[in-house]
Amino acid sequence: MSSGKILVAQGGGPTAVINQSLVGVVLEARRHHGVRLVYGARHGVRGIINEDLVDLTRETSHNLEQVADTPSSALGSTRDKPDAKYCHEIFEVLKAHAIEHFFYIGGNDSADTVRIVAEEAKNAGYPLRAIHIPKTIDNDLVGNDHTPGFPSAARFVAQAFAGANLDNAALPGVYVGVVMGRHAGFLTAASALGKKFPDDGPHLIYVPERVFDVARFLADVKATYERHGRCMIAVSEGIHDASGAPIITQLAKSIEKDAHGNVQLSGTGALADLLCEEIKSKLGIKRVRGDTFGYLQRSFAGCVSDVDAREAREVGEKAVQYAMWGDPAGLGSGSVAIRRTGFYSVDYELQPLAAVAGKTRVMEDEFIAASGTDITDAFRLYLRPLLGSRMPDAYRLRPNPVPKVLKR
Amino acid sequence: MSSGKILVAQGGGPTAVINQSLVGVVLEARRHHGVRLVYGARHGVRGIINEDLVDLTRETSHNLEQVADTPSSALGSTRDKPDAKYCHEIFEVLKAHAIEHFFYIGGNDSADTVRIVAEEAKNAGYPLRAIHIPKTIDNDLVGNDHTPGFPSAARFVAQAFAGANLDNAALPGVYVGVVMGRHAGFLTAASALGKKFPDDGPHLIYVPERVFDVARFLADVKATYERHGRCMIAVSEGIHDASGAPIITQLAKSIEKDAHGNVQLSGTGALADLLCEEIKSKLGIKRVRGDTFGYLQRSFAGCVSDVDAREAREVGEKAVQYAMWGDPAGLGSGSVAIRRTGFYSVDYELQPLAAVAGKTRVMEDEFIAASGTDITDAFRLYLRPLLGSRMPDAYRLRPNPVPKVLKR
Repeated sequence: MSSGKILVAQGGGPTAVINQSLVGVVLEARRHHGVRLVYGARHGVRGIINEDLVDLTRETSHNLEQVADTPSSALGSTRDKPDAKYCHEIFEVLKAHAIEHFFYIGGNDSADTVRIVAEEAKNAGYPLRAIHIPKTIDNDLVGNDHTPGFPSAARFVAQAFAGANLDNAALPGVYVGVVMGRHAGFLTAASALGKKFPDDGPHLIYVPERVFDVARFLADVKATYERHGRCMIAVSEGIHDASGAPIITQLAKSIEKDAHGNVQLSGTGALADLLCEEIKSKLGIKRVRGDTFGYLQRSFAGCVSDVDAREAREVGEKAVQYAMWGDPAGLGSGSVAIRRTGFYSVDYELQPLAAVAGKTRVMEDEFIAASGTDITDAFRLYLRPLLGSRMPDAYRLRPNPVPKVLKR
Repeated sequence: MSSGKILVAQGGGPTAVINQSLVGVVLEARRHHGVRLVYGARHGVRGIINEDLVDLTRETSHNLEQVADTPSSALGSTRDKPDAKYCHEIFEVLKAHAIEHFFYIGGNDSADTVRIVAEEAKNAGYPLRAIHIPKTIDNDLVGNDHTPGFPSAARFVAQAFAGANLDNAALPGVYVGVVMGRHAGFLTAASALGKKFPDDGPHLIYVPERVFDVARFLADVKATYERHGRCMIAVSEGIHDASGAPIITQLAKSIEKDAHGNVQLSGTGALADLLCEEIKSKLGIKRVRGDTFGYLQRSFAGCVSDVDAREAREVGEKAVQYAMWGDPAGLGSGSVAIRRTGFYSVDYELQPLAAVAGKTRVMEDEFIAASGTDITDAFRLYLRPLLGSRMPDAYRLRPNPVPKVLKR
């Protein structure tokens, strides 16, 4: 007989809709007769090994619905990447609390944690179902059409570029917008969805899927500036040279690395400043401005795709359904994946944890233009429905020139 | 008999609602029997001296309404600051086109241009009414309760900090958000309107109205970090030391100045990076992140205060009414000002151009807490109604700790 106790946690970088998945788990679990207590771990796996748990069964439905609409991880998050020993400790805590269903909302590192914990339980003959619930603004989980959190961040980037383009058209110059994305350029590519008229920016888009060459970049900027009298550029923070070295390392004095050995790319304006300086000094263009979208793009309060919010809720609900009733393939444990079934509709399935854990999806070639500095209509068609309803639109005055009188 | 020709232009930094004022002028003017043609100058005063004019009478009402809802200056803008000779050229073009009503939407520099042109016309015995229509995200025009454009930018800053605070609570550390504002701290202070719970950030707010001392700043951050385990900081780009020297000059290698002799503060992440580096190296805190809100805060498509949009429309309409029917004080030319008449309601009046031209309002002392690192309830009460309806709200899980079993 089941203990009727489940545990849910959130890991990695927060998103605007990650609490929809949390609340999807909690409310769906509370509908099941077999579920007696729903626990949450504070600050991800770290909260599990520290037994820093909260009883979510004692929350009101009303407050849960309000939390669902609030950005960032309500339980707190962590950057810890558990090794085998850490995973063993997680398992010990689950066992001690008689938790038989474990839900972890996170990216591909979190999926790997779930995979190891599930294996540990299996080896020990402990009846655990462990489900990974997808989340990442980078959209880099394999086996998913897209990942909850990405559409809302993409919407922010598209709206930001739509506005920055209008600003740049009013006061012409060069504008560099640096967008999050270490290996996958999806979020940077979303900047193109802010375009409406053919001469709107971004005119140049640089993603980590293509090698970044500074000389070629400067030539691209020069040509665009000569053509339009201005130039809007979207750059992924993860752009690198042919050797794979991040462009930012050419500038930064002290490079910070996290527990995963990753170089810190966010939370600094260095890359934008470096590129602006290159353009100013090499091309002699005076008005060059750089913005680094930073944390705004993943947690801004008030820029959520309704499609994203709905799907983030559903992956949480489906996770509980797979855990309670099993999945068609009989996996037991697994990772919830989004499949596209229409234009626009989705369905969900449980995929093996090993299929997603620790793997990184990058932009498909069909999404990147042959020039390497633009996206294709295939990408536009892929992304547009994800951005949701009520996207702001930009209008222009139509040209009605007045004849000159003085003609100086 | 009047020529029935009016001219409107937009100057300085764009805002999210500046086109509301433009459309307010155009649609209101078209209601007056005396008005035959409504011209617009492209890129502000530069478009006037270049006779780069468009006929706005040939626009559809529908397209004008759509443009009104679009951020940034639809006519284009300029950073030119006209001297006496430049103003004389403006006047020559107005005369050549028989324009007898001139409307210029801009900040205090634009008001000064309107003032000089109006004087030139008066000295020449030419029948010109010149009206300055207020606009600036800095909220630094004297004689106004507040300035169109500021509320929407303030809303962006409040929403950005609300989200960044939730992100920082999930992954604790130090966060520095740099906000626009050279002399006036209103926009930086707006970050406080993103707070809900007592321990929410921003915990420290630095405005240009107070001297910034690096040692005191570090002590503030240290104390906050020890108290909350994290620290959210809002910093105005214009912070300066006791001698008045911008803090950013301590870092930047080459300082760019514009035509007004102002140091370039926006479009670079240098100030945020400098402050983060200080905190990391002097306080030994590892997770320190900086964002520079840059151009997003003034032109983001999809973050507009409905109160701001309405008032921006009204200042445009009132400008035309003052020009066509005269104003109670009989000024002829002047600057439209917003007066607060209730909680919350406003009315408008025409103030003399000399009262606003070239002057800078800064935050009143009653708006800044004695500590110098926070705002007062008076400011909260002042700003809240300006942010408009449907501000996003943040909710938390309530504390329901689960007793520890392992107690390691």
